[in-house]
Amino acid sequence: MLYIIGLGLADEKDVSVKGLEIIRRAERVYLEAYTAVLLVDQQQLETYYGRPVILADREMVESHSDDILAGAHEQDIALLVVGDPFSATTHTDLALRCRQHEPSIPTRTLPNASILTAVGATGLSLYNFGQTVSMVFFTDDWKPSSFYDRVADNATLGLHTLVLLDIKVKEPDLKAMARGKIIYEPPRFMTVAQCAQQMLEVEEERQQGICGKEALAVGVARLGSEDELIVAGTLEELAQVDMGRPLHSLVLCGKKMHEMEWEYVRGFAVDQKKFDRVWKETNKA
Amino acid sequence: MLYIIGLGLADEKDVSVKGLEIIRRAERVYLEAYTAVLLVDQQQLETYYGRPVILADREMVESHSDDILAGAHEQDIALLVVGDPFSATTHTDLALRCRQHEPSIPTRTLPNASILTAVGATGLSLYNFGQTVSMVFFTDDWKPSSFYDRVADNATLGLHTLVLLDIKVKEPDLKAMARGKIIYEPPRFMTVAQCAQQMLEVEEERQQGICGKEALAVGVARLGSEDELIVAGTLEELAQVDMGRPLHSLVLCGKKMHEMEWEYVRGFAVDQKKFDRVWKETNKA
Repeated sequence: MLYIIGLGLADEKDVSVKGLEIIRRAERVYLEAYTAVLLVDQQQLETYYGRPVILADREMVESHSDDILAGAHEQDIALLVVGDPFSATTHTDLALRCRQHEPSIPTRTLPNASILTAVGATGLSLYNFGQTVSMVFFTDDWKPSSFYDRVADNATLGLHTLVLLDIKVKEPDLKAMARGKIIYEPPRFMTVAQCAQQMLEVEEERQQGICGKEALAVGVARLGSEDELIVAGTLEELAQVDMGRPLHSLVLCGKKMHEMEWEYVRGFAVDQKKFDRVWKETNKA
Repeated sequence: MLYIIGLGLADEKDVSVKGLEIIRRAERVYLEAYTAVLLVDQQQLETYYGRPVILADREMVESHSDDILAGAHEQDIALLVVGDPFSATTHTDLALRCRQHEPSIPTRTLPNASILTAVGATGLSLYNFGQTVSMVFFTDDWKPSSFYDRVADNATLGLHTLVLLDIKVKEPDLKAMARGKIIYEPPRFMTVAQCAQQMLEVEEERQQGICGKEALAVGVARLGSEDELIVAGTLEELAQVDMGRPLHSLVLCGKKMHEMEWEYVRGFAVDQKKFDRVWKETNKA
């Protein structure tokens, strides 16, 4: 059996009791380590779980899944995934391969907390969110702005948008590669400020009033951990905010923000008076 | 400190290790038991946690929260919530009351699995969902159809809609009440078939082609448990399906269903040939 086990968001103790029991008895334990990261390192997991943990990078999961699945007909194999297993399509893909295997490999998924729902900690109602979008690191010549159309779709309906921020782990250093060496760049995690900045940049270009300077947003960092941080403000304000260590996410608020949501969110505002003023103006419009 | 602890979806072992530690040391432990239910009973929780668990009904949480919060300045109080704490707005409301308390009561939330993400087990990508809607039990003279407009909003964008199904626990028997007695009706949980039937009924009335007989949908039951069940088909097919014990939910598929999603979902189809045909026709349109 392949068990795909969600680890939750913060540390080694966010796994479910059931998940921990499986990890402790599984033949091999893999950790998917490229779509998200926990706030603790591999060694801390190994110590707590009492098991060696094999790091599975994108290449291993996507191209060498046979290694992971070896023996899964008779033995229990555990693949640990930060957050909830289904929040990344890779894992559906893996489950599909198990199903199509000859003979097919039974799989079981243990769900856990995901940023998609933990973002409710902002006070914004999960029922008022539209589709989720991703934001990648812009480069000088690559600034993909397809997120803008989806945010605009949500905005038309007055809905909030959760923006998931790019992480780069184990990216090959292209210059070194050209010299025939494989060196990996240090990991990078997009910050709330960088995301807000990129949104302002695209708004500047598209000019549809979707994510301008006065658009209300909420930045979150390290949700679910003891030092989680939530900061609300305009995109212009958030573009200046330092939210500390990863992981960060951002919510662009919809115009339908209900009074009860506002009452909660304003407690996190950089500048409460401004937040209240903009909310009132937006709600009137 | 008030700890609001998500229990996850299925049984007593879906709580996180961290959550279990808090439950075992908290002064008092409450279980919110009206927005969702676990698949195990209170006694099983008490036995496993080794603690008495006080059932908190809607009235207690919404009108007598002072009882729950008594002593929370000095002691740790745990409020257990099925699924993820933020998937019901009641808990934001409670956290807000803690913040406004004099002196304010510190709160901490432990996220967990929610139906909002566990529904990824269907193979449908969580990034292709629009806003979530709720479906209440229709009566002879009360058939609220506001869900239809929101489903239509999602459908316009080609997005899937998660439909959360009504549960009725501790509803007073109105006839007995008229006789001056307080008797509660037995709990009721809406099934996938009932939901599909109600959607067809509203489509009959509204005629916008949003949830007609040939609309593709996926029913899920007891997600996250060992006997979870997923069944895909047209709404007409799902209106006839028996998915067994609660809890059930339904996803109405959007027209943008990607080939990779289709490939996974069709494995759950009542009638795979029909499912493929309808998907192909819908995708062409």
